[in-house]
Amino acid sequence: MASAFQKNQFTIVVLVCQAVFMVLFGLFAKYDDSAMPGGSEDLVPMASKYPMFQDTHVMIFIGFGFLMTFLKRYGFSAVSVNLLLACFTIEWGIIVRGFLSHEFAHEGKFSIGLEQLLTADFAAAVVLITMGAMLGKLSPVNDVGGSLVVHTFGAYFGLACAKAFANSSQREHENEGSVYHSDIYAMIGAIFLWVFWPSFNAAVAEPADAKQRAVCNTFLSLVACTITTFLVSQATDHHKKFDMVHIANSTLAGGVAIGATANVVLHPLHALIVGVIAGALSVVGYKYITPTLTSKLGAHDTCGVNNLHGMPGVLNTIYPAMKSDTNAGGISASGQAVNQLIGLGLVIVSSIVAGLVTGFILKLKVFNQVREKEMYADGDYFETPADYDFTTRIISRIDRVEINEHTQLTQKEI
Amino acid sequence: MASAFQKNQFTIVVLVCQAVFMVLFGLFAKYDDSAMPGGSEDLVPMASKYPMFQDTHVMIFIGFGFLMTFLKRYGFSAVSVNLLLACFTIEWGIIVRGFLSHEFAHEGKFSIGLEQLLTADFAAAVVLITMGAMLGKLSPVNDVGGSLVVHTFGAYFGLACAKAFANSSQREHENEGSVYHSDIYAMIGAIFLWVFWPSFNAAVAEPADAKQRAVCNTFLSLVACTITTFLVSQATDHHKKFDMVHIANSTLAGGVAIGATANVVLHPLHALIVGVIAGALSVVGYKYITPTLTSKLGAHDTCGVNNLHGMPGVLNTIYPAMKSDTNAGGISASGQAVNQLIGLGLVIVSSIVAGLVTGFILKLKVFNQVREKEMYADGDYFETPADYDFTTRIISRIDRVEINEHTQLTQKEI
Amino acid sequence: MASAFQKNQFTIVVLVCQAVFMVLFGLFAKYDDSAMPGGSEDLVPMASKYPMFQDTHVMIFIGFGFLMTFLKRYGFSAVSVNLLLACFTIEWGIIVRGFLSHEFAHEGKFSIGLEQLLTADFAAAVVLITMGAMLGKLSPVNDVGGSLVVHTFGAYFGLACAKAFANSSQREHENEGSVYHSDIYAMIGAIFLWVFWPSFNAAVAEPADAKQRAVCNTFLSLVACTITTFLVSQATDHHKKFDMVHIANSTLAGGVAIGATANVVLHPLHALIVGVIAGALSVVGYKYITPTLTSKLGAHDTCGVNNLHGMPGVLNTIYPAMKSDTNAGGISASGQAVNQLIGLGLVIVSSIVAGLVTGFILKLKVFNQVREKEMYADGDYFETPADYDFTTRIISRIDRVEINEHTQLTQKEI
Repeated sequence: MASAFQKNQFTIVVLVCQAVFMVLFGLFAKYDDSAMPGGSEDLVPMASKYPMFQDTHVMIFIGFGFLMTFLKRYGFSAVSVNLLLACFTIEWGIIVRGFLSHEFAHEGKFSIGLEQLLTADFAAAVVLITMGAMLGKLSPVNDVGGSLVVHTFGAYFGLACAKAFANSSQREHENEGSVYHSDIYAMIGAIFLWVFWPSFNAAVAEPADAKQRAVCNTFLSLVACTITTFLVSQATDHHKKFDMVHIANSTLAGGVAIGATANVVLHPLHALIVGVIAGALSVVGYKYITPTLTSKLGAHDTCGVNNLHGMPGVLNTIYPAMKSDTNAGGISASGQAVNQLIGLGLVIVSSIVAGLVTGFILKLKVFNQVREKEMYADGDYFETPADYDFTTRIISRIDRVEINEHTQLTQKEI
Repeated sequence: MASAFQKNQFTIVVLVCQAVFMVLFGLFAKYDDSAMPGGSEDLVPMASKYPMFQDTHVMIFIGFGFLMTFLKRYGFSAVSVNLLLACFTIEWGIIVRGFLSHEFAHEGKFSIGLEQLLTADFAAAVVLITMGAMLGKLSPVNDVGGSLVVHTFGAYFGLACAKAFANSSQREHENEGSVYHSDIYAMIGAIFLWVFWPSFNAAVAEPADAKQRAVCNTFLSLVACTITTFLVSQATDHHKKFDMVHIANSTLAGGVAIGATANVVLHPLHALIVGVIAGALSVVGYKYITPTLTSKLGAHDTCGVNNLHGMPGVLNTIYPAMKSDTNAGGISASGQAVNQLIGLGLVIVSSIVAGLVTGFILKLKVFNQVREKEMYADGDYFETPADYDFTTRIISRIDRVEINEHTQLTQKEI
Repeated sequence: MASAFQKNQFTIVVLVCQAVFMVLFGLFAKYDDSAMPGGSEDLVPMASKYPMFQDTHVMIFIGFGFLMTFLKRYGFSAVSVNLLLACFTIEWGIIVRGFLSHEFAHEGKFSIGLEQLLTADFAAAVVLITMGAMLGKLSPVNDVGGSLVVHTFGAYFGLACAKAFANSSQREHENEGSVYHSDIYAMIGAIFLWVFWPSFNAAVAEPADAKQRAVCNTFLSLVACTITTFLVSQATDHHKKFDMVHIANSTLAGGVAIGATANVVLHPLHALIVGVIAGALSVVGYKYITPTLTSKLGAHDTCGVNNLHGMPGVLNTIYPAMKSDTNAGGISASGQAVNQLIGLGLVIVSSIVAGLVTGFILKLKVFNQVREKEMYADGDYFETPADYDFTTRIISRIDRVEINEHTQLTQKEI
C-alpha cells in the first residue's frame, strides 16, 4: 500500500521547497543596482547580453524540451518535466549561487540581474546546482561554455545514477522507441540547440573579441561535427542508412567539445578538428559503447548522454592539453592543461559518487516508483487524449487485420 | 440561400479593407526620420530594440499561432487565421495609432519606424486596435507589458462576444478536443511564449534599468507561476495527474499578471508572489470557473482566455494597489493605485459592452455562419489532405474492429 | 550492378571534400583581427550584428529545414539533408569567398569573423557558392537581401536542373503529397521564415538608418503579401477554400520581392505594393504556371521554387526599374535600373545553363539514382520507425475495412 506521503509526494515536496525558496528570496535577495531606478541609462551592456541570454533560454526550454520528445509515448512528460525541472533549478540555483557570492559574505544579501538569470539557466542545464556552483567557484578552470561542469558532470552523474537505480525491466521496454512524428519533434529541439549553441558558449565570454571568437569556434566545430556525423552514421550502418538518433544528438557534440575552450582556440582549423573528433566519437559511442554500458555495466542510458555530453565533455578537456600554442590565458599552456585535467578528474569522480548515492536514494521504497508498464510513458502522470497509445495499438493491428481480411476474402471466394 | 455577398464575403471585405489601407498609407504614412538616408549612424538604439522586437514577433506568430493548434481538426485554421488576422491588425493598427499621434495632428503625416512596428505587434495581440489605441492614449495608467489593455480587454471582449454569439450546439462539440500530437504542437507555441515573455514586458520599458527590471520580474514571476501550475494541476486532479491544458496556458499567467507593473516591482519576492497567485488562480479557473461560465452564463470559452488573460490581467492591477512600497513613479503610490483601478474598471466595462455588440453583429444573417458540423474544424475552409479526420475515424474504429475480430475468431473456432 | 564507387559514393565524396576543406582552412584561414585577443573591447559592433546573424541562422536551419517537411514520407530527409547541405555549403562558401577576397590576393590568407559566418549562411541559402560568390563580387548590383543572386539564381538553376534530370515517373508519384500533420510541420518552418525575413534583408545593410529601413520595408511587404495570399488563394479556388501550399509559401514572396531594394525603397506604400504584387503572382504561379511548367516544359517543380523564389526575385529587379524616385544610391536611378536589369539577365542565363549542365551530370549512371518507389521518401536513406508509412497504409485500409465490416454485418443479419 502507498503511504500518505507517497500519495501526496509531489505536492508535499514541491510545496515545501517553493515555500522555503520564497522565504529565502524574501530575506536575502535584491535586484542588482543596475536594475534599480537610476541604476543605468547605458543601453549597451544589456543590448550585448540580452540576445545571447534569450538564445540560451530557447535552448533550455525549447531545445532540451523537444529533444526528449523522441520516445513515442513520452512527449507530454518530456516537454513538461523539462519545464518544471528547469524552473525549480533556476530558483534553487539563484539561491545557492547567491549564498556563495562575495556579496552575500560581506553584506548578507545577494543581487539578481540579467547575469544571474543567465547563470541560473546554465544551472538548469546541469540540474545540479549545489555541486555545479561549488565546482564553478573552486576550480581555476577555463570553462566559458560550461562544458566541463555542465556536460561532463551531468553525464556521469546521470549514468552513475542510472546504474544504481537500474533494474532489468528498464531495458528493452516496448515503450522505449520512437514513432515517425516523434522523431521529427525531436529535431525541432535538436536544431534549435544546434543553431543557438554559439550563443551558449559565448554568453559569458569577455571581452568582445573573446565573445566573437567563441561564436566562430563553436560555429565551425558544429559544422564539421555535423558533416562527420552524417559520414560516420552512414558508413557504420549495415544498410548504409542514416540514423535519426545520431543526427539529432551527435551533430551537437561539436558544441559540447569546443565548449570549455571556445574563447581560447585561435585557429579555425583547430575548431574543425575538435568538431570532427567529437562527431565521430559520439556516433561510435551510440553504435558500440551504449550497448556495452547497458549490458556489461548495467547503466542504461536512454538518451545516450555519454555520447552527447560525457565523451565530448572529456575530449573538451583533453584536447587543449595536447595543444601547446592555443592558450592565451595568463597561466602557461601546460599549467593550464594540468589544471584542466585535475578539474576533469574531480568532475568525473564527484559526479559518479554523487550519482550512485542519488540513484540508491531514489530507489528507496519511501518514494513512488514508476510502474513497469508505464515506463517511458505519459499515461500515469498526464491526462491523455483518446489517441494517446493508438499508434502502437494500430500498427500491430494493421498486419493482423490484413491477414484476417485476406483469410475471409479467400473463404468467401471459396 | 446564400446571397452574392455571403458567397464572396471574404474576398469583398478583405479586398476593400486592403485597398483602403493602401490609400491611407499612400496619403499619410512616411518613414521615421531615423529610418531615412542620413537619419542615423548610431547603431545602439536599434541594437537595443531590435532583439526584443523580434522576440515579440515570434510570440505573436509562432507563439499564439501554435498555442491554438491543440484542437484536433483545427491546426490549419489556428496557424493561418492567426497569421492573417495579425497582418490585418498590424496594418490597421499602424493607421489608427498614426491618426491619433501628435505628429499627425500637427503635420498631417504619421511616421513608421521600428517602434511603430513593435506597437503594431502589440495591437495584433489585442486584435482590437481602435479601442486599444484610444485606451492606451487616454489613461495615465502604468502598463509597460500592456497587460491591462491587451490581456484584460481582449479577454472580456472575447467572453462577452462569445456570450452574445452563443448557441447551444457550440458546447460539447465532438471536434472540441485534442489528440496526442496536437497537444504537443500547442506546446511549441506555449514554450515560445513562455521563453520570450520577458521581452514582451520589457520591450517598451525605459530607461535601461527599467528594461532589465522588467526582464527580471517577468522571468521570476513565470518561474514561480510554472511551479505553482504543476503543483495545483496535480493536486486538484482526481487521479493526481497533470493536465496539458494547464501546462500550456496557466504557466503563462505569471507573465500576464506581472505585465503592467513589470518595470515597477522592486523586490524579487513580489515577482514570485505574483507568479504563485496567478498560476494558482489560472488553474482553479480552468477547473471550476470555465465550466460555470459556460453552463451558467452561456459564455463558452474555448481557450480559457478568462484564465490566461482575464483574471491574471485583473490581478495585475489589483496587486500593486495592495502594495504601498513598490511604486516608484512620480504619482504617489495610492494615487497610482486609484488610477490603475479606474483604468481597470474602464477596460472591463468597455470590453464587455463592445464584445456584446460585436457578438450580436457577427450573429446577423448577413454574415456566413460556421456550419455546426464544421465547428472547431478546418474542413470547410481549407483544402485538407486525405488523413485530415482519420485519427477520429480510426480510434472509434479500432475498438469496433477488435470486437468484430474477436467475434469472428470465436465463431471460426466454433 | 552497383560499382564499388556507387556503393560508397556518399562516404567517398564527403570524406574527400571534408579532408580537402580542412587542409585549405589549415593553410589559408585565420580569425579576423577583431576576433583575436586584444582585438576589440567595443561591444556595439557585435551587439548590432549578432541578433540578425542568429535570426538568419534560424531561417536557414529551422525555416528551410521544416518548410520542406510537408511531404508525407520525407520528413527525416527534409530536415537532415537541409542540415548536411547547409553545413557543407558553409565550409565551401567560406573558402571560395576567402579566395576571392582582396585580403587573400595581397596576403595569401583570408579572415573569418562574424561577417564571414553571416555571408556563409547566405551562401548556404544559394547552395551555389562559386557562382553566387562570383556574381556577388562582379556585378555592381544593389542586392542587400541577396534576392537577385540568392533567390533568382537558386530558382532557375533548380528548375533547369530539374528539367535536365527529369523523367516521367517523377510526376504524380503517390509519395508526393502531404498528410495533415506534415502540413503543420511545414508551417513551423514557414512562420519562422516569415518572422525573421526582416533580419535576413537587413543583416548586411549599412548604416543604421538603412538597416531600419530594410526592416520596415520587409515587414510591410510581408504583411501586405500575406493578406493578398489569403485573398487570392480563396478567390481562385473552386470551393472557395484556402490552400496550405499557398499559405506556407506565397506569404513569403513579399520578403523575396523586396529583398534587393529593401534598403532603398523610401515610402511605405511602395513596400505594400511590392508585397501585394508578389503575393498575387506567387499564388497564380502555383495555380496555373507550375502545372504548365511540368506538363509543357517537363520541369517538375516539387516545392514551387519558381513561385516563391523565381518570379518574386525577378519582380524584385523589374520593380525598382519602373520607379524613378526611389533610388538614393550614388548612381542615377536609371543607370542603377539598367545595372539591375543586366544583372538579372546574367543571373537568369547563367542559372539556366549551369542548372541544365548539373542536371545532366547528376543523371549519369556513375551516380546512384533514387529508386522510383522511394522517390520523395525517407525509406532508402534513413532507419525508420515501425509507423513510417502507416498513415498511407491505414487510410486506404479504413475505407476497405469499413466496407468489409458492413458486408459481414449485413451477411450476419441475413
